Amino acid sequence: MPLNVNNFINSLNLKSKNRDFQDLEHLDGVSISTVCANLYSKFRDDLVMFYFRDGANYASVYTQSKIVSENIKWNLNIKSKKISSLIVNTRNANAFTGSDGYKGLKEIAEEAASQLTEKQIEDEDSPKKISSNQVLFGCTGTIGEKYPTEKIKNKIPELIKRIRYTQNKFIWMKAALGIMTTDLQPKIAMEECQIGNKSVKIYGIAKGSGMIFPNMATTLGYIFTDADLSNDVLSKLLKKNIDTTFNAITCDGDTSTNDMVSIFSTGKVKNPIIKNINDKKIFNFDKALHLVLLNLSKRIVKDGEGATKFITVNIAKSKSEKEARVIAFSIANSNLVKTAIAGEDPNWGRIIMAIGKSGVKIDLKKLSISFGSIKIIEKGQIFKNYNENEASNYMKDQSIDILVNLNMGSKSFTAYTMDLTKKYIEINADYRS
Amino acid sequence: MPLNVNNFINSLNLKSKNRDFQDLEHLDGVSISTVCANLYSKFRDDLVMFYFRDGANYASVYTQSKIVSENIKWNLNIKSKKISSLIVNTRNANAFTGSDGYKGLKEIAEEAASQLTEKQIEDEDSPKKISSNQVLFGCTGTIGEKYPTEKIKNKIPELIKRIRYTQNKFIWMKAALGIMTTDLQPKIAMEECQIGNKSVKIYGIAKGSGMIFPNMATTLGYIFTDADLSNDVLSKLLKKNIDTTFNAITCDGDTSTNDMVSIFSTGKVKNPIIKNINDKKIFNFDKALHLVLLNLSKRIVKDGEGATKFITVNIAKSKSEKEARVIAFSIANSNLVKTAIAGEDPNWGRIIMAIGKSGVKIDLKKLSISFGSIKIIEKGQIFKNYNENEASNYMKDQSIDILVNLNMGSKSFTAYTMDLTKKYIEINADYRS
Repeated sequence: MPLNVNNFINSLNLKSKNRDFQDLEHLDGVSISTVCANLYSKFRDDLVMFYFRDGANYASVYTQSKIVSENIKWNLNIKSKKISSLIVNTRNANAFTGSDGYKGLKEIAEEAASQLTEKQIEDEDSPKKISSNQVLFGCTGTIGEKYPTEKIKNKIPELIKRIRYTQNKFIWMKAALGIMTTDLQPKIAMEECQIGNKSVKIYGIAKGSGMIFPNMATTLGYIFTDADLSNDVLSKLLKKNIDTTFNAITCDGDTSTNDMVSIFSTGKVKNPIIKNINDKKIFNFDKALHLVLLNLSKRIVKDGEGATKFITVNIAKSKSEKEARVIAFSIANSNLVKTAIAGEDPNWGRIIMAIGKSGVKIDLKKLSISFGSIKIIEKGQIFKNYNENEASNYMKDQSIDILVNLNMGSKSFTAYTMDLTKKYIEINADYRS
Repeated sequence: MPLNVNNFINSLNLKSKNRDFQDLEHLDGVSISTVCANLYSKFRDDLVMFYFRDGANYASVYTQSKIVSENIKWNLNIKSKKISSLIVNTRNANAFTGSDGYKGLKEIAEEAASQLTEKQIEDEDSPKKISSNQVLFGCTGTIGEKYPTEKIKNKIPELIKRIRYTQNKFIWMKAALGIMTTDLQPKIAMEECQIGNKSVKIYGIAKGSGMIFPNMATTLGYIFTDADLSNDVLSKLLKKNIDTTFNAITCDGDTSTNDMVSIFSTGKVKNPIIKNINDKKIFNFDKALHLVLLNLSKRIVKDGEGATKFITVNIAKSKSEKEARVIAFSIANSNLVKTAIAGEDPNWGRIIMAIGKSGVKIDLKKLSISFGSIKIIEKGQIFKNYNENEASNYMKDQSIDILVNLNMGSKSFTAYTMDLTKKYIEINADYRS
C-alpha cells in the first residue's frame, strides 16, 4: 500500500519534514484503509475507512452551527453502543443536500455493514453481524453539491479488501492525508500513558481549514485509543477537553456545518474499569488526551489559510472562565489585531479595542498586557520601561504570545489563532480567477 | 477661508466629484470654524469647532465598548442642558490617556468657554456667560498617545476668530474634511422637511474608518438642525434611528473606544412644540433624520478600508428584529462571505454557513436566498432555474444585495458592509513598512 504521491505533494508546500510528525504505530483493534474514489478531478486518496473488528466504544462532539450536514444528522441518530466503522470522505460536505444526502449515507452504511459482516465470517472465530447503524460518517468539502453516493459505495469493496490488521506509521499518514481537503499538511499526534498499571496509546488525526467551491472551513478530528473505556467516560473526557483545545482555536471566526471530533476506544488493553472521570486512575489518560487534542488543534491553526504566525492569546486572572473566553476570542477574531500581527506591528491599541468591544466589564486600573516577556501595559498604564523597538523586534517571531492579565479573579482561558494575511484573501477570494 | 488643499487631496483618491455631495448651505444658529493645529506631520485642518451662539439642545449615543475614551467620559459628565460648542480633533483619540487626557479636555473647555464668553460680550445684545460644561468633545485617531492639550488650546483663539455667522457649502465641506483621519472621502448629507407648517433643515457630517498608529476604526457623526426640539425628543429620535443606520453598519466587526453620534438643535425655527415622538407632526422629521443618518452610514461603509463593493444584507420575515440583526451581522462580519464577494464569487454556501453559525434557530425548509433579483435558494433547496453564470455576472456589480428570507415571521433587519480585500490587509498590516 504505497503512499499516494498526490496527497503528499500538497503537504510538501510548507517543506515539512518527516521528523515533524510523531511515529504512530500499531494500535490494537483499529484497522485503516484508504482509496481514491475519484471525488477530486486529480488522483488522490479521498476516502478513508476505519474498521474496528471487535467494535469500539465511542463519543463525539459536533459543530454548534444551527445548520448541520446530513452525516452529522446520521451520526446523531445512531443508537448503537458500539461502532464498527468510521468512513470519512472529502470533497463533498454532504451539507444542504437534503434527503438525498441522508439516503446516500444509508445506502453506503448498508453496503459497508453487509460486506464487513462477510469479512467477519471470513476472519473471526465468532463472527458478529455488523449493522448499518454501527457505521459513523465524517464528510468534508463542498456544500450544496449532490452527494457522490455511487462513487463512494462502489469503493466499499476495495476499502474492505485493503484492510490489514497491523498498522504502521505510513498507514496513519495515509489516513491523515486522505481526510485533507486543501490543508497544506497532514495532522497527526500521539501520546502514551498509564491507566492503573496498564500502558495505553492515544492516537489522533485531524484536518483543518479547507476551501473548495463553495467551500468553508471544516475541522475533523478523530482520536483512537486501545484503552477500555465506556461511552459515558469517553463522552465526559472528550467534552471536558474539547473546550480548551478544538473549541479554543479560531482561524477566521467562521463555523462549518460539518465540524466533528470523535474518540474511539477499542478496549484491547484490559485496564481497570473506570466508572467516574474523577477516578485518580484516569488522571494521566485525561492529561494525555488533552495533549493529543491540543497538539492537533495547534496544527490546524498553524496550517490555517494564509497563516504566517501562530498566535496564543492568554487571558489570566479573570472573574470567570466564560469572561476570559469571551475576551480571548474577541482578540483572536479581531481582523485589526490579526492584520497588525501579520504586519509585525506591536499595535497594542488594537488589543485594548478588542478587550473593550468584548462587552466584559474590566477594571482598567488593574489591566496588564504583555507580548511574550515584553511588558506593555501595567496597571492600566504604559509600562515605564516599555521599548517600542524591543516590541517590534519580538513581532518578527513566528509564534506570538499575547498575555492579558485582568487581575480580577483566578480564572483563565487560552485561545489560539493565526494572523490575517493577503494570502488568506487570495485563497478565499481569488481562487477562481 | 479657503479650502485646505491637503484635506482635499485625500478626498480625490476616489475621484469623487463635487456633484457627489449635496449642497449644505446656511443652517441658522450654528457656526463652523476649522484650523490646522499641526496634529499631523503634514499641514491639514485637524481641529474643528462648532459654535451655537444661542446654545443648542442636544443628544448623543456613544460606543458600546467597555473601554471608552476620555472625551466620552467628559461628555457623559456634562450636566448642562444646552451645548455652546462641539470641538472635534483628529490624530489623537484621547483613549487610554488616563487622567492627563481628561485634564487636557478640562483645560481646553475652560479656555474655549472663557473666550466664547468674551465673544458673546462683543457680539450679542444680551450676552450669556458660557461655562466649560457647555463644551462637548469629539476625538479620533491614535490611542494611548499623550493628548496634545497645548497644541489644541493654543488654537482656540484662532478658531474663535474664524467664526462667521453665515455658513455655506465650502464651510461644511471644510468641517467634513477637518474631522477625517484616513478616510478617503468627506461624508456629508442633508434633508429638509416640515414640522407642522414650518420648514426645517437636517444637516450631517461624519467620519469613518481611519488608521493611524496604533489606530482603530472610529466613527463620528454630527447632525445639526435648526428645528426647536427638546433634549428628550432629540435623544429618543436619535436612539430610535441609530439602530437601523450607524448601528447597522460594519466594516470589520471591530468597535472603537471613541464612536459617537450627536444631534444638535439650534431652535431657530419656531416649529410647534413636540412633547412626544409619537406626535404626528414629528413624523416627517423622524423620516428625514433617518435618511440623513442612513446616507452618512452608507458613505462610511463605501469608504471602508480597501472596499471595492458595497454590500447590503437584508434579513426578511424573521420572528424578531433581534434575530434578524444577529443573522445579518453574522453574514456581514464573515470574512469568508466578504472575501467571496471581493472575488466576485456567488458563493452562497458561505451565506448558509454564516446563517448556521449565528445560533438563531431557523426552519431550513422555509429558507430562501437571493443575490439581487437572482433566486438561489427557495424553500431550502437550490432554485430550479438557478444559473451559476447569471449569478457570477451579478457579482461584478459594485453594489451587492444579499436577501435572506426566513419566512418565519414579520420582522426584518438590514445591515451594510463592504468586501474584504488585499487592500484592507495592506492598510492594516503593511502601512509601517
